[in-house]
Amino acid sequence: MLSKARIKFIKSLQVKKYRKQEQSFVVEGAKSVIELLRSDFDTEVVVASAGFIRSYASILKKNREVIEATEKELAQLGSFQTNDAALAVAKMKANKMPHLKDEFCLVLDDLHDPGNVGTIIRTADWYGIQNIVASEQTADFYNPKTISATMGSFTRVNIFYTNLTDFLSKNKLPVYGTLMQGDNVHRAVFGSSGLIVIGNESNGISEEVMPFITHPITIPQLGGAESLNAAIATGIVLDNLCRSKE
Amino acid sequence: MLSKARIKFIKSLQVKKYRKQEQSFVVEGAKSVIELLRSDFDTEVVVASAGFIRSYASILKKNREVIEATEKELAQLGSFQTNDAALAVAKMKANKMPHLKDEFCLVLDDLHDPGNVGTIIRTADWYGIQNIVASEQTADFYNPKTISATMGSFTRVNIFYTNLTDFLSKNKLPVYGTLMQGDNVHRAVFGSSGLIVIGNESNGISEEVMPFITHPITIPQLGGAESLNAAIATGIVLDNLCRSKE
Repeated sequence: MLSKARIKFIKSLQVKKYRKQEQSFVVEGAKSVIELLRSDFDTEVVVASAGFIRSYASILKKNREVIEATEKELAQLGSFQTNDAALAVAKMKANKMPHLKDEFCLVLDDLHDPGNVGTIIRTADWYGIQNIVASEQTADFYNPKTISATMGSFTRVNIFYTNLTDFLSKNKLPVYGTLMQGDNVHRAVFGSSGLIVIGNESNGISEEVMPFITHPITIPQLGGAESLNAAIATGIVLDNLCRSKE
Repeated sequence: MLSKARIKFIKSLQVKKYRKQEQSFVVEGAKSVIELLRSDFDTEVVVASAGFIRSYASILKKNREVIEATEKELAQLGSFQTNDAALAVAKMKANKMPHLKDEFCLVLDDLHDPGNVGTIIRTADWYGIQNIVASEQTADFYNPKTISATMGSFTRVNIFYTNLTDFLSKNKLPVYGTLMQGDNVHRAVFGSSGLIVIGNESNGISEEVMPFITHPITIPQLGGAESLNAAIATGIVLDNLCRSKE
């Protein structure tokens, strides 16, 4: 049974301060919880409907603690009222600098919307990108909205939060960035490795990061919109990168 | 001054039933309101901060009614608490079948998330797509979340809600659709006109629409994600279409 203390603890994890303090985060929804259980994250507790527990008994067995809850309890427990199957609490991973090899890595320059960051992680995962470096002002990876928008991809993509100026000063890889005045992305030449900087939703790439861009690229615009959503731009650049390797 | 009746009226437009009844909708935020005022939509009233009214006096002059409000009043009036500059009420346009010429048109097959629909409209506008046909179950174009996510593109892209089976039975253009098993979108041949079907967020293209797909296409997947967000997939397909015309 769900104790009051447990409910309070799970609800507190919607707030970044408490997530940081507890080094724990919440995963909501059947698909995301299953991906969590199959990953190398350390799951502390799973709260799930009787149906979910029956269907996923074999994966749940490995876990320390499974609590059965009604659909109503589940909906009230999480940040998404539509979740009526499963919710889990897991331990955060350490914020570690990735060892970039022969690969492309995304750099998020103050992306503020957790939905956008989650969608970018999901899109990165689709295209096989395993590492993301994010500015300290970028929306939290462990925010429930970020985790939810990744649709399970949070288990396969690593994110490292750091001061981008420090990170980029030490970097030797080519740095691609989408700007209004760059080379047409359809003709961009991507080598075997590099960084791809994605700018803030309203302001684009920041002044501090701009000097590090070695390969400015532009997505051709044919109509009236002034800009693309940051996650859409990421998808388009990654698709062009993927295409250049075919 | 904002009367109580007016506040009640504007707030009622957050609900689809009342929007339909009044044939009116709300536009929030400075950028979107400016785009609205520059468009051929019929604006009924603008509620704005003193600063906004001063800055945009020349565009506002054409309008019937402008009401000054404090930032607090504005934040309380709309569905987004971050709006502190302007909000407008405008008349909906008639739901009219587009006369498709030598062009590409998007077809939305039960897209439920207004944020996704708005982002798709913005992306369509970026690539010069002017018409969208949507199933009756697709999120409402006039939902404040849809309008907001279009970032002003709602003024340049027309949407027509209809029964897709009826619409597709009469259509003679090629019908592209993103499926798991289709031709690589990087090698797709796009003619000068066609329909591009975007499937529902969870279920993809519906059973009823599937038989009408003449050109199944697939976005290559390199990593672990099972699917792409619907708006991301739209952006990638449109970018490939744009590229095929360069």
